[in-house]
Amino acid sequence: MRPLEYCNGVLKLVDQTKLPLEKKIVELSTYEEIADAIKKMTVRGAPAIGVTAVYGVVVAANSINTSSKDEFFEELKKACDLIKSTRPTAVNLFWAVDRVYNKAVSNKDKSIEQIREIIEAEARLMEKEDIESNRAIGKYGNELIKQNYTILTHCNAGALATCDYGTALGVIRAAHEAGKNISVFADETRPYLQGSRLTVWELMEDNIPVTLICDNMAGHFMKEGVIDCVIVGADRIALNGDTANKIGTYSLSVLAKENNIPFYVAAPISTIDFSIESGEQIPIEERNSEEVTHIKGIRIAPEGIKVRNPAFDVTPNKYITAIITDKGIIYPPYKENIIKLKEA
Amino acid sequence: MRPLEYCNGVLKLVDQTKLPLEKKIVELSTYEEIADAIKKMTVRGAPAIGVTAVYGVVVAANSINTSSKDEFFEELKKACDLIKSTRPTAVNLFWAVDRVYNKAVSNKDKSIEQIREIIEAEARLMEKEDIESNRAIGKYGNELIKQNYTILTHCNAGALATCDYGTALGVIRAAHEAGKNISVFADETRPYLQGSRLTVWELMEDNIPVTLICDNMAGHFMKEGVIDCVIVGADRIALNGDTANKIGTYSLSVLAKENNIPFYVAAPISTIDFSIESGEQIPIEERNSEEVTHIKGIRIAPEGIKVRNPAFDVTPNKYITAIITDKGIIYPPYKENIIKLKEA
Repeated sequence: MRPLEYCNGVLKLVDQTKLPLEKKIVELSTYEEIADAIKKMTVRGAPAIGVTAVYGVVVAANSINTSSKDEFFEELKKACDLIKSTRPTAVNLFWAVDRVYNKAVSNKDKSIEQIREIIEAEARLMEKEDIESNRAIGKYGNELIKQNYTILTHCNAGALATCDYGTALGVIRAAHEAGKNISVFADETRPYLQGSRLTVWELMEDNIPVTLICDNMAGHFMKEGVIDCVIVGADRIALNGDTANKIGTYSLSVLAKENNIPFYVAAPISTIDFSIESGEQIPIEERNSEEVTHIKGIRIAPEGIKVRNPAFDVTPNKYITAIITDKGIIYPPYKENIIKLKEA
Repeated sequence: MRPLEYCNGVLKLVDQTKLPLEKKIVELSTYEEIADAIKKMTVRGAPAIGVTAVYGVVVAANSINTSSKDEFFEELKKACDLIKSTRPTAVNLFWAVDRVYNKAVSNKDKSIEQIREIIEAEARLMEKEDIESNRAIGKYGNELIKQNYTILTHCNAGALATCDYGTALGVIRAAHEAGKNISVFADETRPYLQGSRLTVWELMEDNIPVTLICDNMAGHFMKEGVIDCVIVGADRIALNGDTANKIGTYSLSVLAKENNIPFYVAAPISTIDFSIESGEQIPIEERNSEEVTHIKGIRIAPEGIKVRNPAFDVTPNKYITAIITDKGIIYPPYKENIIKLKEA
């Protein structure tokens, strides 16, 4: 189940706004279209956004019609800036675009045609690395999952949020593949319904037992002893372990702690923003009010109502039991252990 | 804004499944129709359910065609049992039906016609008492609301949930009427969307500033310092103060405590079930899965998905700062103070 595929200058995306009722593939051949697809959440999930953005850079590089290298890099920079401006919270977007742009710059002495090839090769490498990362996250995370566990997850940190396999759902897939008898409770995740539309669909396709609940039911099932652990993804992790993730994650972390349930974050090392000390420095995207007042184009709230719609929240490190990465499991104290892992 | 009106043998209900897009009034003239309306949530909210149920008993009493008093009471009992079987969690339903039935029984020596009149008079008295209760709750609760407070509420404990004025929203109305500059954050309250459909609509009609959020955003706004207190209604309160209310209430109470925000329950004394020691004894209604998988008839989750849909949860007393009743504000220790209030 791969949400994106790049072939012959065209990026194909599974339109995640249409799932699960319709599996529509959109074909994008300009970087402006690709930037717009990220903004409109045709594709979403921090790692998938990162790789989509990088193919945006590939498409941009191929479309810059010039023999002047200065002009080429000027245009390439403009495209990168536009792509990076689409969503503010997920760090993978900036990290991925900068990586491929810097790769191009460090090959400035080559011909434009060669630079284009280097950019595409780097994009393909990053796609491959993402899938390998998720497999590694799954392998490490599987160690934390016991027989007969019921695992709560929020939003979609699955194959659809990455290039394949998923981060939080990668851990769940790895435990399932290891033959463990596990089941999943999935929050529907308002307002965009990533849980009911995407997570539930992915898990059903893989025959992993899953139960759908509304976001406000999670605490009740924790108190009732139904949930054994919580695993979520991440959009950006600060140096001290504070984690930005889909709105509602913070609440789950507090409820898990109150009920003595382990709370795990699963994300590749590329999600860690080493440049920020704490979660307070992470900008939180606020999206339009129609996501809350309408569902599938149908109004569910009165006209003129004022809405707040933050897409993410920050979970302070004290609520996080461990961070499952592609390089191993990080336990508190996070800052110390994150720096150690970076230097390893 | 009154959700129910009884006149000449017909109970008119505002169809709350249609609000806010349509203000449809349904007219019910048999007790079976009235029971069905409670079940289908045409009317909802513990106090409104109680008074609706009582008018169901009025309609039943008027329709029993017999001159035998034994047969009259047998049929009346049957109607009462049917009405009480509609929803299991709200105690007001049982309390209200039992009160009017016992009133009839204690007047067994009167003629059937006189008993019918006594039942109707008792129903009208209970409706009047409910509104007076809410005004009293508002008066007491107003003392807890400070200038410039932003108040979070969940579900709809408003005029639409009662006979008028509301419980949690009664406190908010009283503070607004007292000239305090307050504003409200309303959780949309999945799956039935009482917040976005009813609470927001009620408050807008009264020109009380209100902002709509999704349920999973409440914790974030508490952490950010936006919320000054939480006020919710109640469907049943145990002797020790444990409170059953709309699903999601428990989570809010934990999040409020974690963020040092007062958490208030507003409910008439009739919501206290003196027969149960703790919240563990309160049955939690589980409703059908379509409430979660469909919105306005449109499917939003894959076919065949397993769903859990508890309509309520229980908030343990330790998370409740105070219970605002029509007889005064109750503080911990709840059991001691609830018994005192009952005996007063």
